[in-house]
Amino acid sequence: MADRSGIITLTTDFGTRDPFVGIVKGVILGIFPAARIVDLTHQVPPQNIEAAAWVIQDSYRYFPPGTVHMAVVDPGVGSDRRALAMKADGHFFVGPDNGLFSPLLDQAETVIALCREELFRDEVSATFHARDVFAPVAAGLAKGLNLEETGDRISDPVRIELPRAVAEEGVIRGRVVEIDLFGNLITNVPAEMIPKGRVLVMVGNNDVMGIGYSYASLSNTAPGAIIGSHGRLEIALKNGNAAEYLGAGAGEKVELTVL
Amino acid sequence: MADRSGIITLTTDFGTRDPFVGIVKGVILGIFPAARIVDLTHQVPPQNIEAAAWVIQDSYRYFPPGTVHMAVVDPGVGSDRRALAMKADGHFFVGPDNGLFSPLLDQAETVIALCREELFRDEVSATFHARDVFAPVAAGLAKGLNLEETGDRISDPVRIELPRAVAEEGVIRGRVVEIDLFGNLITNVPAEMIPKGRVLVMVGNNDVMGIGYSYASLSNTAPGAIIGSHGRLEIALKNGNAAEYLGAGAGEKVELTVL
Amino acid sequence: MADRSGIITLTTDFGTRDPFVGIVKGVILGIFPAARIVDLTHQVPPQNIEAAAWVIQDSYRYFPPGTVHMAVVDPGVGSDRRALAMKADGHFFVGPDNGLFSPLLDQAETVIALCREELFRDEVSATFHARDVFAPVAAGLAKGLNLEETGDRISDPVRIELPRAVAEEGVIRGRVVEIDLFGNLITNVPAEMIPKGRVLVMVGNNDVMGIGYSYASLSNTAPGAIIGSHGRLEIALKNGNAAEYLGAGAGEKVELTVL
Repeated sequence: MADRSGIITLTTDFGTRDPFVGIVKGVILGIFPAARIVDLTHQVPPQNIEAAAWVIQDSYRYFPPGTVHMAVVDPGVGSDRRALAMKADGHFFVGPDNGLFSPLLDQAETVIALCREELFRDEVSATFHARDVFAPVAAGLAKGLNLEETGDRISDPVRIELPRAVAEEGVIRGRVVEIDLFGNLITNVPAEMIPKGRVLVMVGNNDVMGIGYSYASLSNTAPGAIIGSHGRLEIALKNGNAAEYLGAGAGEKVELTVL
Repeated sequence: MADRSGIITLTTDFGTRDPFVGIVKGVILGIFPAARIVDLTHQVPPQNIEAAAWVIQDSYRYFPPGTVHMAVVDPGVGSDRRALAMKADGHFFVGPDNGLFSPLLDQAETVIALCREELFRDEVSATFHARDVFAPVAAGLAKGLNLEETGDRISDPVRIELPRAVAEEGVIRGRVVEIDLFGNLITNVPAEMIPKGRVLVMVGNNDVMGIGYSYASLSNTAPGAIIGSHGRLEIALKNGNAAEYLGAGAGEKVELTVL
Repeated sequence: MADRSGIITLTTDFGTRDPFVGIVKGVILGIFPAARIVDLTHQVPPQNIEAAAWVIQDSYRYFPPGTVHMAVVDPGVGSDRRALAMKADGHFFVGPDNGLFSPLLDQAETVIALCREELFRDEVSATFHARDVFAPVAAGLAKGLNLEETGDRISDPVRIELPRAVAEEGVIRGRVVEIDLFGNLITNVPAEMIPKGRVLVMVGNNDVMGIGYSYASLSNTAPGAIIGSHGRLEIALKNGNAAEYLGAGAGEKVELTVL
């Protein structure tokens, strides 16, 4: 198919200790043997839809157009929550209708509620739709299935609001949304929002140095702000743990003032 | 080969910190470049053959027939324990002869003790048969090697007994065999054994609600029983940790009484 | 390409919780859709160049010649540290010029400082060269790009010294370089350096049994020495944790005396 890359990405909260992710891959390869499957992460904090939405938003654009992104963080599995497939920005997305794909909804061309049961596994459990519903549909889409053939168009997918940074009168107000493996504070302030020139950066009540160019340009002795790998403002401490240093966690206020 | 899927699954206790799993994949791809390799888990508790046997039994059927399942949890590596390749239920299995594949033995058509040394790596270490013995044989089988050509037929592979649930006089007696990532208690009571209709479920001395349809149908305030992703009875607490709530771990008795 | 295997291995300190490794794979597959990508490890201790160098050295030879090994442990990202691509022992290596590939430098035919910006992603961040610089170059090399076309030859790549074992007058002196998942002490004493016959093995001030043939040949009650999966001397305790038993960690002296 001209508009399919043959790649499927997976984002879940399944962890890697149990064989669930492997089973999902088995189902995919049974339907589409040429699929190339890439794990984004299986360590989304359990049932944290917002964290998964950030992962999808941060990652999808680095894959070729026509990639299928399957995400399953699904506290409502087995309830009457709908299952979605959609196309946005040239990519396909498959998962529960619980807000996982909210950041992409404004760009979505087509949003489908999955209902063609002949696409699913013969027996659909009430606890493992990743295996029984989403994997078969993702495999089908990656192989070339027409999106419209997976179910019915809907116009009211569930949305969650990710906390957005706001700019007004020379002040940008955002939040820490995540602490990464290295103790860096990842904020919701996108690079595009930050003006060139001198900026004062506050995290809670602490001011931090900024905005540096790279980790290497940071100081060893005090945290500083940089544009990090997520394409957003990040507070880091060279050779140290900025979160511990500042005693700051997810939710902490971040304020940038243009000088 | 008509009866090979070209897929190899891996189940080990190697963890993912050391490069051992990657090295095994290098050896496989050197022999069979078109192999598609799927990790089931590398976090089997160290040397826990029974836990690995559950992983294999729970997972293999979700792969296409003709898949090669390589499992290496191998406390006896370097001793005179035999090495196995076998075919059962249309799938191939490769690993040490220590009981790993016990649940499949009753269905096995052919069980082979590996002894054709020309199939192994030139130098076979006493500590890393996954790399030197099992990966080459698994790659060969996935590529189309005749199972009979890997060694000699045997009739006495090592068996371990997995604890089985027993049904008598309206009572089903089983055990918790594992606590999963979410704190759910995974039992050895298969879905097929559980009658329709009302059932009283006891875990140790606690009775739990049951049997619900899905995680979403559970209560927030007390644990309940459902048929989980393993296809077995599972005790879960909605938005909580059932194992902590009940103070129950692996080995705990589970009893179902038909009302 | 005759001299390329189409395989790319990845070694990083990115962990698997964030989607960074997945993003790197997306960039690779966008450039070279047929790439087969193998994770060696993403759990190198943060910024530990020496640990990554051991991983590369221990692993690369188990892949087919013409494999591209990309390693990114990169405390200097965004500084003026150079980026490297090189060929050694029939394999290709791509990563920052900070000593990661030191063990291979003596065998390197060609060492290149990457500078052909048209090979990189359009926008090169100051924090994520794995995505913007190394992944595109690794994908290009795996696909058949001429190594000489990636930049300029250099003769002074950064070297770090890995601690080497020394043999003199019947005594071999080495060190513990790592504790593995099972609590085994991995030393820097290569199998080739150890004479046949009886050897006294000391770890710090403790003598240990040795040298056994395999884990299975060890005692349950006291640690012993064997040649482990890394191809180096290893101190292990059967069904136990040798590091805890001996109270020994990385850096501990290891001494072998030929009897």
